[in-house]
Amino acid sequence: MKVKEIMDKEYIYVSPDQDVVEVSLIMEKKKKFTTPVVDSQKKLVGWITSLDVTMGLREGKKKVSYIMHSRDDIVHVHENDPARLAVLATSNHKVVSIPVLNDDDVVVGVVRTFDIVETLSHLYEIKVYKIFEAMAEELKGVSWDELMEASAIVTRRRTGKRIKPEEYEKNIRESTFGEAIWATGGLEKFFVGLIAIGELVIARKVARARK
Amino acid sequence: MKVKEIMDKEYIYVSPDQDVVEVSLIMEKKKKFTTPVVDSQKKLVGWITSLDVTMGLREGKKKVSYIMHSRDDIVHVHENDPARLAVLATSNHKVVSIPVLNDDDVVVGVVRTFDIVETLSHLYEIKVYKIFEAMAEELKGVSWDELMEASAIVTRRRTGKRIKPEEYEKNIRESTFGEAIWATGGLEKFFVGLIAIGELVIARKVARARK
Repeated sequence: MKVKEIMDKEYIYVSPDQDVVEVSLIMEKKKKFTTPVVDSQKKLVGWITSLDVTMGLREGKKKVSYIMHSRDDIVHVHENDPARLAVLATSNHKVVSIPVLNDDDVVVGVVRTFDIVETLSHLYEIKVYKIFEAMAEELKGVSWDELMEASAIVTRRRTGKRIKPEEYEKNIRESTFGEAIWATGGLEKFFVGLIAIGELVIARKVARARK
Repeated sequence: MKVKEIMDKEYIYVSPDQDVVEVSLIMEKKKKFTTPVVDSQKKLVGWITSLDVTMGLREGKKKVSYIMHSRDDIVHVHENDPARLAVLATSNHKVVSIPVLNDDDVVVGVVRTFDIVETLSHLYEIKVYKIFEAMAEELKGVSWDELMEASAIVTRRRTGKRIKPEEYEKNIRESTFGEAIWATGGLEKFFVGLIAIGELVIARKVARARK
């Protein structure tokens, strides 16, 4: 995934000569805490946040250029950068949004943390049984019931907890991938559990074939 | 994971009677775009953002109570809620932060989107070879080299792309879980690929044992 796929293209922008009072009205109306400052070619020249604006209003600074952060201090990403660079930039610098530039230094979008949260959280919200369905389809000749049975057995072996196949199925229907990796103690452990289940159903399939 | 594990406990808070100019100085100094408004028992009574403050400064509103959002309009979570509720709240409501309450309606923290991004992104940044290492350990009697060989074979079967085991190993050493699920077309497909690799190494192990 690239930065341009997660960026907001409906961003606002202002010019260095613009009046601070006017800019405060725009930012309030559009509910934006930040905005890029651009020149007549829409090239990035600065960046302001609503906290720069409160300072400007309080101290009577008239123009955006008096309150903006200069070009060199602005954390930014390129539209073709991998999206993960925008993710790392916002969390490392603890910012709520960063401007996206193209090859000509022109602002083409803004990446916002709540959009990142939305994108990242999709993965966590996937229902666990979707993974089991894909697994059942892959393991040809193994039925869904056999898979649930093997899952209940592996759970007992690993946690000591007795669980019926029907209960196991209910659990995975209700829980998300995020909850599952949290409950099992991490991605690697979750996956190892799946492999153990896979191993068991394959072993049973092989044993059945030999009879 | 619970909300209290991802919330910021070093949040600022203000009172309804506080002076808007004073509050603007605090928010700028602490670099906070939002702050809960609390009563003398620290119970939540309102919420302001820096955009409410710009409006207040421009229009000469003196007190926080004149610019704050009222209690009923505030998206909030409980400290013992699952963390995923805070994640869903910030992305659904497109807010940069939300207050965290305890049983007495007292503010005990604030969840911020960049902290959520940091927490969520850890999963995406896990190196794929960590999963393979866990898999190699689980599949007793299968060597790392056999696992890489099987992976190269499964890749060829599924994508038609010829890849040497050494190249495969180099790829998984360099790529993250986030990149891998993106490249394979989603979580389920990624897992199914791993299950296919598991099946193949188990089949080869069984065949070897029979000789």
